[in-house]
Amino acid sequence: MVKLVLLRHGQSIANQKNEYTGWSDVPLTALGESQAHSAGRLLREEGIQFGDVHTSVLVRVIKTANIVLDEINQLWIPEHKTWRLNERHYGALRGLNKDYTRQIYGKKQVALWRRSYYSIPPELDKFDDDRRYANVPHDLLPLSESLEMASARIIPYWIDEIAPRLKAGKNQLVVAHGSSLRALLKYLERISDEGIDGVEVYNGEPIVYTLDNQTLEVRNKKVLSYEKKSAD
Amino acid sequence: MVKLVLLRHGQSIANQKNEYTGWSDVPLTALGESQAHSAGRLLREEGIQFGDVHTSVLVRVIKTANIVLDEINQLWIPEHKTWRLNERHYGALRGLNKDYTRQIYGKKQVALWRRSYYSIPPELDKFDDDRRYANVPHDLLPLSESLEMASARIIPYWIDEIAPRLKAGKNQLVVAHGSSLRALLKYLERISDEGIDGVEVYNGEPIVYTLDNQTLEVRNKKVLSYEKKSAD
Repeated sequence: MVKLVLLRHGQSIANQKNEYTGWSDVPLTALGESQAHSAGRLLREEGIQFGDVHTSVLVRVIKTANIVLDEINQLWIPEHKTWRLNERHYGALRGLNKDYTRQIYGKKQVALWRRSYYSIPPELDKFDDDRRYANVPHDLLPLSESLEMASARIIPYWIDEIAPRLKAGKNQLVVAHGSSLRALLKYLERISDEGIDGVEVYNGEPIVYTLDNQTLEVRNKKVLSYEKKSAD
Repeated sequence: MVKLVLLRHGQSIANQKNEYTGWSDVPLTALGESQAHSAGRLLREEGIQFGDVHTSVLVRVIKTANIVLDEINQLWIPEHKTWRLNERHYGALRGLNKDYTRQIYGKKQVALWRRSYYSIPPELDKFDDDRRYANVPHDLLPLSESLEMASARIIPYWIDEIAPRLKAGKNQLVVAHGSSLRALLKYLERISDEGIDGVEVYNGEPIVYTLDNQTLEVRNKKVLSYEKKSAD
């Protein structure tokens, strides 16, 4: 048996403002930092010794990971930062308030963009010129993504970098985003394209999986939290 | 031309208590955290874009590095944590107050241990059983080190991991410890075994080198600081 922990970053400025974010690099709020500390304390009680931590290349995730590693006294473990774990790219919706998009595009269209596995938000005109993506082949960089498209860049990272370490018996911590974690969770729990619609991953609540370390099948799952869940 | 920055961690609890530390994993003081923020702001003014950051596997260094990366908005760059950049191992002196060791062993012996390139402090009885060193070949793990011995594990890391990245034109940030940085600085500036005696590296003051990116010869060196230097 081996442990896998999935953790969504603490509340970001965009979460607080109810805006679409995607690949924008928005900071944590004070609440978000405190959620990261809580997540760390919850994990400390579990006593899991991690082999590695994996993050996106976005600050809200990396700060959450560093706060958690500090709380569990494992700051020294290898930290792998990859664009493949970035949030789903929200295209031209990015920076827009979620209620505002409902007024402009209608409730039904927005619900499709947010929840359907296949629906692609309007594209950006051109990709951001950001040094952190300089080594990513240009045709792999998205201008907008459905959850299916996000999954197509996330799962190869799982296969190449996370799964082999789990099979070697090393517990792994993955700190990422609401939708990038939904993609992983769908793959891991074999949830259908329709079934993923109703699945939420909450800020700062570690999801602890116990996996068979030969097959990586899920033997147990629990979500750690100090509080009752609230709506999105 | 390429930039190399060497940075000693902010003040640790052991620095504050005037104790030998070496491989003990002591936290930063509040002053130490504030020194890390200052170092980050000083580096931000330089506008250096780093390719990588290298740290030891000790918390006082990793926290300093993370604070600096946050201040310069480069939290997303690859972070390489290695036991080879750990502080010189102070053997059985570790945890002892520096004044106390002078009373016990005499001023002259302590000055030798602290400043001579070759002098080895008394050894520990056995090596710490710490998970972070599990993959290090046992005969490479020290029970005590002279600066020469520390250098023999640090320079291979320079040769294998730092120098090639500099030669590829990528600016590198190395966050480490007083003595592990003295070893690097001695190698880089070709300081004699006797000459390194008088060289100090101060907490939280970035040393910025401009190197020829073919030969890695030092073309320029400056130390960034908000304040006048104070004694050890």
